[in-house]
Amino acid sequence: MKTGLNNLLSPKSVVVFGVSEQEGKAGNSVVKQLMDGSVRVYGINPKGGTLYEKTIYRNVDELPDVPDLAVIALPSGLAPEATRACVRRGIGAVIVISGGFGEIGEAGRKLEQELKEAIVGTRTRILGPNTLGLLIPRLKLDTVFLPSSHLRRPNPGNIAIISQSGSGVMGALDVGSFYGVGLSAFVGLGNRIDVNENELIEYFAEDPNTSAIGVYLESFVDAQKFIEVCRKVSPQKPIVLVKAGRSSAGAKAVALHTGSLAGSDRVTDGVLRQLGVIRAYDDEDLLDTARALAYAQPLNGRRVAILTGGGGTGVMIADYVEAKEKGIAANLAKLDPEIEARLARMALPFASVHNPIDLTPSASNDMYAEAIEILQDDPGVDVIIACLMYHAAKRDEQLTEKICHWGKHGKKPLIVAAIGSETTMQANRQMGTAGVLAFPSFWRTVKAVDVLAQRAEFLRQVNSQKEDVPAPTGLESLFVPKPGVPLAEDEVKAILRKRGIATPESIVLYKGLLPAEIPLPFPLVVKIRSAEVLHKTDLKGVALNITDIEILEQTVAEMSSRFPGEDLLVEHMEPPGVEIIVGLIEDGTFGLSIMCGVGGILAELYQDVTFRRVPISRLDANNMLRELKAHALFEGFRGIKANREAVTDLLLKVSSLGQDLKGHIDQMDLNPIIVREDKAVVVDAKLIWKTGTME
Amino acid sequence: MKTGLNNLLSPKSVVVFGVSEQEGKAGNSVVKQLMDGSVRVYGINPKGGTLYEKTIYRNVDELPDVPDLAVIALPSGLAPEATRACVRRGIGAVIVISGGFGEIGEAGRKLEQELKEAIVGTRTRILGPNTLGLLIPRLKLDTVFLPSSHLRRPNPGNIAIISQSGSGVMGALDVGSFYGVGLSAFVGLGNRIDVNENELIEYFAEDPNTSAIGVYLESFVDAQKFIEVCRKVSPQKPIVLVKAGRSSAGAKAVALHTGSLAGSDRVTDGVLRQLGVIRAYDDEDLLDTARALAYAQPLNGRRVAILTGGGGTGVMIADYVEAKEKGIAANLAKLDPEIEARLARMALPFASVHNPIDLTPSASNDMYAEAIEILQDDPGVDVIIACLMYHAAKRDEQLTEKICHWGKHGKKPLIVAAIGSETTMQANRQMGTAGVLAFPSFWRTVKAVDVLAQRAEFLRQVNSQKEDVPAPTGLESLFVPKPGVPLAEDEVKAILRKRGIATPESIVLYKGLLPAEIPLPFPLVVKIRSAEVLHKTDLKGVALNITDIEILEQTVAEMSSRFPGEDLLVEHMEPPGVEIIVGLIEDGTFGLSIMCGVGGILAELYQDVTFRRVPISRLDANNMLRELKAHALFEGFRGIKANREAVTDLLLKVSSLGQDLKGHIDQMDLNPIIVREDKAVVVDAKLIWKTGTME
Repeated sequence: MKTGLNNLLSPKSVVVFGVSEQEGKAGNSVVKQLMDGSVRVYGINPKGGTLYEKTIYRNVDELPDVPDLAVIALPSGLAPEATRACVRRGIGAVIVISGGFGEIGEAGRKLEQELKEAIVGTRTRILGPNTLGLLIPRLKLDTVFLPSSHLRRPNPGNIAIISQSGSGVMGALDVGSFYGVGLSAFVGLGNRIDVNENELIEYFAEDPNTSAIGVYLESFVDAQKFIEVCRKVSPQKPIVLVKAGRSSAGAKAVALHTGSLAGSDRVTDGVLRQLGVIRAYDDEDLLDTARALAYAQPLNGRRVAILTGGGGTGVMIADYVEAKEKGIAANLAKLDPEIEARLARMALPFASVHNPIDLTPSASNDMYAEAIEILQDDPGVDVIIACLMYHAAKRDEQLTEKICHWGKHGKKPLIVAAIGSETTMQANRQMGTAGVLAFPSFWRTVKAVDVLAQRAEFLRQVNSQKEDVPAPTGLESLFVPKPGVPLAEDEVKAILRKRGIATPESIVLYKGLLPAEIPLPFPLVVKIRSAEVLHKTDLKGVALNITDIEILEQTVAEMSSRFPGEDLLVEHMEPPGVEIIVGLIEDGTFGLSIMCGVGGILAELYQDVTFRRVPISRLDANNMLRELKAHALFEGFRGIKANREAVTDLLLKVSSLGQDLKGHIDQMDLNPIIVREDKAVVVDAKLIWKTGTME
Repeated sequence: MKTGLNNLLSPKSVVVFGVSEQEGKAGNSVVKQLMDGSVRVYGINPKGGTLYEKTIYRNVDELPDVPDLAVIALPSGLAPEATRACVRRGIGAVIVISGGFGEIGEAGRKLEQELKEAIVGTRTRILGPNTLGLLIPRLKLDTVFLPSSHLRRPNPGNIAIISQSGSGVMGALDVGSFYGVGLSAFVGLGNRIDVNENELIEYFAEDPNTSAIGVYLESFVDAQKFIEVCRKVSPQKPIVLVKAGRSSAGAKAVALHTGSLAGSDRVTDGVLRQLGVIRAYDDEDLLDTARALAYAQPLNGRRVAILTGGGGTGVMIADYVEAKEKGIAANLAKLDPEIEARLARMALPFASVHNPIDLTPSASNDMYAEAIEILQDDPGVDVIIACLMYHAAKRDEQLTEKICHWGKHGKKPLIVAAIGSETTMQANRQMGTAGVLAFPSFWRTVKAVDVLAQRAEFLRQVNSQKEDVPAPTGLESLFVPKPGVPLAEDEVKAILRKRGIATPESIVLYKGLLPAEIPLPFPLVVKIRSAEVLHKTDLKGVALNITDIEILEQTVAEMSSRFPGEDLLVEHMEPPGVEIIVGLIEDGTFGLSIMCGVGGILAELYQDVTFRRVPISRLDANNMLRELKAHALFEGFRGIKANREAVTDLLLKVSSLGQDLKGHIDQMDLNPIIVREDKAVVVDAKLIWKTGTME
């Protein structure tokens, strides 16, 4: 990790460039906010004078000592010189909150370049420019120049938010603060010319004040580094990511199926799963997810007990818990009869003590608390959802306090749903401030269960299985004629066979000439053999199911007349089985990635595919199969015998091959691969080199 | 429609049974709330006296005139007698807000029975018992006994909410009221012994104060009537339904694929689509959806313009608009160059005037308003989403007022996203009160676009196409041997052929005896013919691809030896094509329903099926095909020629057959049906009679 982040994120003294007397100006509000906090604050303005009874220095050299951090609130044109002055004075970190840089075009980009140059070869770090900067509630370090009347500031807490956009997450931070959600830090990356998400994730991974890291990005500054960092961090500390721009990230120019099925976002999806990074889809979702992970422990399982004070709420929550569509496909816990008996003893006569438990609107606050206490003892319950209706007169702070107690001290994770206006909002805030998970929506409540269950599943996998990535063997061993020179199908298959991947037995008929004897068992397939023809079927260049020598001779003659002078490929025709597709693709963001999916036409319609970045481990390969909607194909569905292990092995071999071909290959399709009881055989194979390597 | 609902829903005078001086009691709060309103209020208590300077009558006979409505806030045991007194006095409607009836078991059910008997043969109607009763803000008619400090009351508005559960929707009504959402009425159905959802939907359909009807149900009091009512109402006025209990509604005992694919909820889904009823999934969703439909016009199309003051928000909203997964698969409007030029002229130099438009955080309130004004003129825009960030100091009520103006008076629907704490909440409330659609979440904002687009699509269909339901022909014409007697495959197919549904040519070999000549073209299929064997393949009772007479003779001999004395069925084997499945099923809620789905094993894994209630129109049949994820199969995907019209015709024929078999049939599977360029042929057919008809 580069140095300087401590200066940025836990400074003892800060200097602000561009301080101003004028209310509403950034140079005014930032100074006031910083003075409220625990850091020593200096102000700079060429005019000098005083502000709020403090000396204003005319330049950085006048400062009595060297502050840890500088905040530059000057017009963009003045920022480079101020930054250079900071560097000269030995200031370790600079936040440029001014806008007017790369985001406005060429002139701004030039200024940005000047900023970059100012710190080259120095220890000074820059956050921004064009950023809201920092918010570290614990230190009351606050460079966000929006008025606190319009944007609430969060309490100190254990969530770190790193955002490429200020506007994108402001709303959620504002509402989150309203509901008592606490942050260890908010860092706005702005134009990200120096300090970036990757080193910040590493920083917060080590930060004892941070339990979960939430990130909003529209692009990765360095996707390879992101992968490396997340691989290291996410087993220790949960990372949540909004990767915005899902829809506009167009698929690359598509020659093969793998390409057309990828789109950039599907690869992102797969890589994030591979890394254990949980994906969120907007600012609210980001904070909800980070909060769930920061406030509660991962779940031992997906058995949910629901406690309500009214039937309807229980039914809707149960629907979200159990349903596969519009739901999280978890389970309603089957309560222990002893637990139900205890609930019945303390509840009102007309309460229902089966899950979802309905204490009725007439239940006392004590009954809620007691029910939660009783549920702690049910070994069949992994998490409790308590739906609190604050609409009855007797629901008050006393209930909230009891809930906070169990939320903090209970053995089982407790998640609260409470929907309503002021009274409820106040209760939610009280719970949020106490570090209890409470959401003003049934769906958001249930989603938190899913997040905590996912996290637990990831951690179990990480702990139970070693990384098992086969080592690459090296390109030389492949006898690839020459990367860049188009390969015919049999040449691609030759490479596959070198790597122990099964293909049908075959011979090449050069210029279409049949040998005296065909050393292949019938039935056969005849295809034209040409490195130039990718889609043979479209050209009627494939003849299937040739059952005897006579038909073979006819077929070869016919094909040769249509494709005079071309070579033909004759193969043993594989008996039917489950068809899958496996592919490689050079993704614009993440680099070489591997796809696995169900093959055939329907699969293309259902787009049942999943991606991982190369190389993959055995665990990754297994997860890929499990993620397929049609994963039952590999689990004996309707007596289908498709060898799961054979597919896993094949994926690992293709991944290892990908490692060797990396940098040379653009896309590869193994499609279809026929999987039967004993093996997986690649029936057709295509490979496209990178254009750059096509000399 | 039965009479009495006017007494209930627009009474001029109300009498309350069980009035009380004691604060917090229902008999106290209800009287106070009613006295606040515009209706004349009487109170009854056997003790007499006065309350709030009004005479308390000792019984209903003492009242100076006959009130329109009675509210009974007595212990349940006293409610039947009070109801009988109301009937005797000629009171037209009674709300029993007391609990302690059917929901508590046998004793309560007896009291409920007494209530029912009290009104038999009279004009008096009962709402409840065990209901929060009514909330009609326009009349300040409010029988909800929860304190307004804990449960906000809505403003008068144009949404009617009908709910089987009080608790289920209270939270959303409370939050909705906080945000200014107005209601024409809230009606709690309670135990629903008399007044039910169906007549209330009809009532609000005619109510000029109501623009959208939102319904929360856990069960249908009469599903056939619900269908009839919605069919009539939904083309006129939008209906939104939360049908809770999705997950627990188990599938019925399953013999055929149609049954296993149905589950009760899939049928519900299909029937609601058929009726144009929009489905919601929780209380918040119900109110959001009803509000969208009540506040805004259906959209002409799905082209969305997004206006923001910060890049990140625009990217996330655009993702939700465009994405197929976690999105609504709509389109970002391509703005007219002239419009973009006008935007550029008024915006700040660094604003981005391409959609999503980013006015930058520095934009003035006027710029927002002007941008919305300019977008009104773009013919390529169907709806505007404005994301307002109230976090900058200059965002204030002035902005909100401008937005309200355009929300109310603009030519294009305007939907606002504004996420934040107090300042933003206040703005959202102001917009909500003004009847402008504003949501504190990006996803809820975008979902409103989807709802308004769906509504428009439904209305276009209703208006463009006549109901086209073929008339049933009558059971007699079918020559069904006798409903209840199990049918062999060829007998089911005989019925299908009677209805013009194609099946392969076939002959029956009685006792397995081959005739001298086989009047069928090869290749052939041989199956055992038994009404008792539903799953022939599992018993190896099917031989495919028999290419000549010799193999046929062998096969018949072999089968006859394995199934001695059984009849065999010999059929021409259909060439391959797209495989679909069509079925009929008697659904426990909606009655006979028809299924259409993609056939084959993958389809079973992907469960790509859709349902409608029988009978269906041609429009329904077309919509069923369109709803399949693999609908591209019928649209020339990859050169596949599957005759769409043939499938539509087949669905209509099966629906019509279903009408004739209704009451007798439990399930029917036509699976697979092979669809080719010219026709659809039913290759296998199974039918199960209802158990009741198996004499």
